[in-house]
Amino acid sequence: MTRTPFDAQALELVREYRPAVVSFHFGLPEPDLLEAVKATGAMILSSATTPAEARWLEQRGVDAIIAQGVEAGGHRGMFLGDDLTTQMSTFTLLPQIARAVRLPVIAAGGIADADGVAAALQLGADAVQVGTSFLLCDEATTSTVHRAALQSPDSVHTALTNRFSGRPARAIMNRLMRELGPIGEVPHFPMAGAALAPLRAAAEAAGRGDFSSLWSGQNNTGCQQTGAAELTRALARKL
Amino acid sequence: MTRTPFDAQALELVREYRPAVVSFHFGLPEPDLLEAVKATGAMILSSATTPAEARWLEQRGVDAIIAQGVEAGGHRGMFLGDDLTTQMSTFTLLPQIARAVRLPVIAAGGIADADGVAAALQLGADAVQVGTSFLLCDEATTSTVHRAALQSPDSVHTALTNRFSGRPARAIMNRLMRELGPIGEVPHFPMAGAALAPLRAAAEAAGRGDFSSLWSGQNNTGCQQTGAAELTRALARKL
Repeated sequence: MTRTPFDAQALELVREYRPAVVSFHFGLPEPDLLEAVKATGAMILSSATTPAEARWLEQRGVDAIIAQGVEAGGHRGMFLGDDLTTQMSTFTLLPQIARAVRLPVIAAGGIADADGVAAALQLGADAVQVGTSFLLCDEATTSTVHRAALQSPDSVHTALTNRFSGRPARAIMNRLMRELGPIGEVPHFPMAGAALAPLRAAAEAAGRGDFSSLWSGQNNTGCQQTGAAELTRALARKL
Repeated sequence: MTRTPFDAQALELVREYRPAVVSFHFGLPEPDLLEAVKATGAMILSSATTPAEARWLEQRGVDAIIAQGVEAGGHRGMFLGDDLTTQMSTFTLLPQIARAVRLPVIAAGGIADADGVAAALQLGADAVQVGTSFLLCDEATTSTVHRAALQSPDSVHTALTNRFSGRPARAIMNRLMRELGPIGEVPHFPMAGAALAPLRAAAEAAGRGDFSSLWSGQNNTGCQQTGAAELTRALARKL
């Protein structure tokens, strides 16, 4: 369950580019690969979706833990189980992880503006990770149909779905999710995406996101069409 | 969908006892009953689980709105729909309701301690409603099996379930929820409870909560065996 696509080839890229931070999702790579990444001097992050996952990551020597609340957009980083009812909100998860580990904790999920940043720090975060709010920024490579969905009234309704990749991830409810149901039988991760690709491409060519993965956090009210630096300053203004 | 058990007989009790506050769940009573309650001088509250429900309640003249995050224990107050994927966390819902209405907003769901109270105010709440944290208090009528469950390691895992009443409500995962699945076909609200009653009674007599509705919010880390006044002071200590 903890196997990930991080392999020897990915390690070579890390050795070549020497990023200051390497952040994993779905657990951690095999121990020898993880040690090799650490040896490059990179700071190691990974996501925990339960207190048990946070303790597991701490025992394996990560430098900081991302507490991924169920509100977060895109893929759940869950790796010690697959029962979605175990997935807690930021309000519930963050203080429990902050108490469960001695490492710095980065809050993710539901944080959309400066008040959200301040509330996360109040709940025990050392830092925050904001994703969805940046999706309309000038620098973001967000697709046209995705940008339209984030700005439409439909964006109020997101759900966890495995239809797009084979693993649960949060997206804006669209035709595919509505008609098939957001969760159901699908090809194994990540092959569901390949199976869907022709339909998605045809719909996007017609300007429709009916079959696209419109990733979004549950709280997408902070999206702004501005520069990423300006948005970052706005998020930090209560610090 | 907005029909509730509040009827002429309940109105007579309100007229007799004149409570200062009458708080509804599952929407509001029929307009003539609501007007009669208002005529007693009671402050009227009701729960909203989406921004649309908050606006609906505001239009019908409630005095304040309870923003019920998906973390909350017991029954979801949802009344304009029954799709559980529309149910947002406190981090997501509270600021949206605070922006959607002009009324005072009371945050509920996931708030377990003084930091949680402070975070909720940061996110736009005018007040908070804390439930689960009081369930072990001296004054609470919480049953023996329920108290045991709240203090066991199992309490980390709650889920929304319709097995106990016919409507979705958050409880600590137990044998019934695990073996049947937390959500499924059940008798209509509230008859599921009657169907289950003999099994529940037999198990409880043997000291087991396997078939009991062990209501709990997702964040049940704030339960304390103390007096309710002392716990209230502890919750308020950062104000």
